[in-house]
Amino acid sequence: MKSSPTSPTILSLLDFQNLNSAQIFSFIQTALDLKKRQAQAGRFLEKQTILGTGALLFFEPSTRTRFSFETACIRAGVAPLIMDNLAGSSLEKGESIEDTILNLEAMGPLFFVVRCSDQTELREISEKLKTPVINAGWGKKSHPTQALLDATTLFERWGDLRDKNILFVGDVLHSRVFSSHVELSKILGYRLGYCAPTEFGLGEFESLKAGIKSFDQIRHALEWADAVITLRVQKERHDSISGATNEDYRQRYGLNLERAKLLKPSAVILHPGPINYGVEIEKNLLKDSRSVILQLVENGVFIREVLIKSIISGEI
Amino acid sequence: MKSSPTSPTILSLLDFQNLNSAQIFSFIQTALDLKKRQAQAGRFLEKQTILGTGALLFFEPSTRTRFSFETACIRAGVAPLIMDNLAGSSLEKGESIEDTILNLEAMGPLFFVVRCSDQTELREISEKLKTPVINAGWGKKSHPTQALLDATTLFERWGDLRDKNILFVGDVLHSRVFSSHVELSKILGYRLGYCAPTEFGLGEFESLKAGIKSFDQIRHALEWADAVITLRVQKERHDSISGATNEDYRQRYGLNLERAKLLKPSAVILHPGPINYGVEIEKNLLKDSRSVILQLVENGVFIREVLIKSIISGEI
Amino acid sequence: MKSSPTSPTILSLLDFQNLNSAQIFSFIQTALDLKKRQAQAGRFLEKQTILGTGALLFFEPSTRTRFSFETACIRAGVAPLIMDNLAGSSLEKGESIEDTILNLEAMGPLFFVVRCSDQTELREISEKLKTPVINAGWGKKSHPTQALLDATTLFERWGDLRDKNILFVGDVLHSRVFSSHVELSKILGYRLGYCAPTEFGLGEFESLKAGIKSFDQIRHALEWADAVITLRVQKERHDSISGATNEDYRQRYGLNLERAKLLKPSAVILHPGPINYGVEIEKNLLKDSRSVILQLVENGVFIREVLIKSIISGEI
Repeated sequence: MKSSPTSPTILSLLDFQNLNSAQIFSFIQTALDLKKRQAQAGRFLEKQTILGTGALLFFEPSTRTRFSFETACIRAGVAPLIMDNLAGSSLEKGESIEDTILNLEAMGPLFFVVRCSDQTELREISEKLKTPVINAGWGKKSHPTQALLDATTLFERWGDLRDKNILFVGDVLHSRVFSSHVELSKILGYRLGYCAPTEFGLGEFESLKAGIKSFDQIRHALEWADAVITLRVQKERHDSISGATNEDYRQRYGLNLERAKLLKPSAVILHPGPINYGVEIEKNLLKDSRSVILQLVENGVFIREVLIKSIISGEI
Repeated sequence: MKSSPTSPTILSLLDFQNLNSAQIFSFIQTALDLKKRQAQAGRFLEKQTILGTGALLFFEPSTRTRFSFETACIRAGVAPLIMDNLAGSSLEKGESIEDTILNLEAMGPLFFVVRCSDQTELREISEKLKTPVINAGWGKKSHPTQALLDATTLFERWGDLRDKNILFVGDVLHSRVFSSHVELSKILGYRLGYCAPTEFGLGEFESLKAGIKSFDQIRHALEWADAVITLRVQKERHDSISGATNEDYRQRYGLNLERAKLLKPSAVILHPGPINYGVEIEKNLLKDSRSVILQLVENGVFIREVLIKSIISGEI
Repeated sequence: MKSSPTSPTILSLLDFQNLNSAQIFSFIQTALDLKKRQAQAGRFLEKQTILGTGALLFFEPSTRTRFSFETACIRAGVAPLIMDNLAGSSLEKGESIEDTILNLEAMGPLFFVVRCSDQTELREISEKLKTPVINAGWGKKSHPTQALLDATTLFERWGDLRDKNILFVGDVLHSRVFSSHVELSKILGYRLGYCAPTEFGLGEFESLKAGIKSFDQIRHALEWADAVITLRVQKERHDSISGATNEDYRQRYGLNLERAKLLKPSAVILHPGPINYGVEIEKNLLKDSRSVILQLVENGVFIREVLIKSIISGEI
């Protein structure tokens, strides 16, 4: 939909469809280079000017993703304009998200960062814009920058991603991070597997079709994994759909010191946060040298900085 | 009240009383020049430094006006400090708006931008300050920058405003945009007319006194107009005061493709937004080449940038 | 707890324990120098670049303290990232304040500014960080920058603080400003006294032990004072604890023109704001040349700017 032979397309980052493996590895490498340079600069910025504004629209709340994009903006020389307080917005007067975004576009931001629900027609909206849109979490559909920061962190550890086994534990069916990894894994060449309660898995047929390994036993899953991403248990959803309690979940799927012994010594443990300690993951496991929870957050800023710079300069 | 022979006055933009036609046309011309230069610069800023802070106080919520002023600040080299979340404010502890503003003034902003209700004594407050205040929408009283962005957009189309007929359709009695146009039209030399349900008009006598044309029939009004500004129907108010439904309104006053044929080919269609599609204006009319909805928003940033720069440099 | 012989400590400003009198007087002097230079620069900033980000976390709401720190950040060349809207935060998903802060640290802010409740283990959290934390009001425990801005303002008046008598009128028992003054007075060498309803005083024994003068009679207290800090009456607390009404309080402790005559001509009247006019202090007393309410606010920005610059440069 977004490309046509006659007109150059306005490129947004709603998903990875405009990007190939070489481009993505180049973003990852650039992010890791920036991180090194930043460490030498003692956390001060290299770039100290303001090129323009970026419009950060959070139609669904988030602290950490908003802060990450705000920080990335400032590092990229962009002044972030934030909308995250719906009470103070024209949406209350019945304006649609599309109208809000079209109006804000007329104010000349260099790009949009948008978090919204599944109901928002973000693709249709972005196709009406001349301004690029970066997806910062779109309902249960996708969250490409989160998948990219996972990939960046694993690449940082391994120097490669090809043929690695990445295991998800938890509710993959409703996980936008998982969805984005399904897409990214095909481009970058890593394998996905999951271990989840039946009602939160893809189902045997869907898994096979997508080339994703499905594990019944957490033990087999962990032995297979080069990295494990433990998904947050969303209490409300679990209680209402499955009737399972946190305690059931912890016993069957919770990652703990004992189970972590099944992982390879070189394995990496990830969690997108915020964490329910003692449910999907045991607190003292975070001190394990294989855990990279805060490195994910750190790398998230650098990969977003790279994406913003690329979008501003028209490279994406 | 604001000028005295002995002391130079601190000049705020609460209304147009300090400004003459030459000054305002100069602001408009400068805004349109900035727009041209910006288009050449590919949306990057010319000015990349920070001169100081501007305090943007929204005692009543607004997304688009806040974003517009924020963008204008950043383009003018000013870091905007925002207060728009009353839940997080000292006002909850019973502090008055006057005390809040006096306190914030002591922190040295270069200017204030204030949106507030009719009840706020904004003029009295501004007279106690040494810091200029820009009115960003004052209850039903006035909204001078909105009138200026209309004027800028019409000037951009026509190269002049004198002797032009500008028609308002809708609730002029409660419209701060209309009030500001009444004031601005006298300075810039354009004529105003309106067509509205009786309970939302000025009344025969008031209209005559103010030199404003009142139309009973939308058809006659549209034939007269060089530009038409369709006001937003504020549902709550309509229902409670007039008992009229949106459907009644649409039938009697709504602008649609059929009625738009009555307008001159050179006429311009404006709406301050957010729009109730299908009530005061039909959605597909926005694609008419005579409609300038998003240009208004775009020009709004440039005229506000010019006002901010003038206020900072002491020109206003 | 924060210093060890083997590792250099990360220095935060939770209280004054890392600071000696020479350092604090140097901060005060630098703040007053900045103020002079700023006055000459016509409120424009000297520094127009952005060195990095500062994370301003308001787990309890505040307008004026937030604005003061935001302004100080921008003057120090730091882009402030604000979290003050708990509705839009990960805290809603059950994340602890500690986890939130650890996550935000991974995004590389140069420092934190934190306002939080007594329940927050701010010291324990800060000891887990490599990033300095500035206390912006910690429950009823402490508010060091507020004590510093009082001290800065009094130093500006007197050129010294040693052996001066500083009187608090009001609820010292629950006042974080008073607590911070108890600590600061020992370092800078001024004396404290208070006059308060019994249930809001320290008690005879505690006062003696701490070397703080306790006055039964407001008249004797005012005669003793070189400066008087009138604390805000927190209505809810007064009503529920003491049964006393605002009118009782005003009659026994309220500072008015009559009582102000008991103060020395050189005395200084302070109030941390927001003010309940006619309860703890009479409105027209603010016009008395001895009142410094807004100077406190003004100096607050400069002392915070100095602290931020010192923390960034590693001087604290």
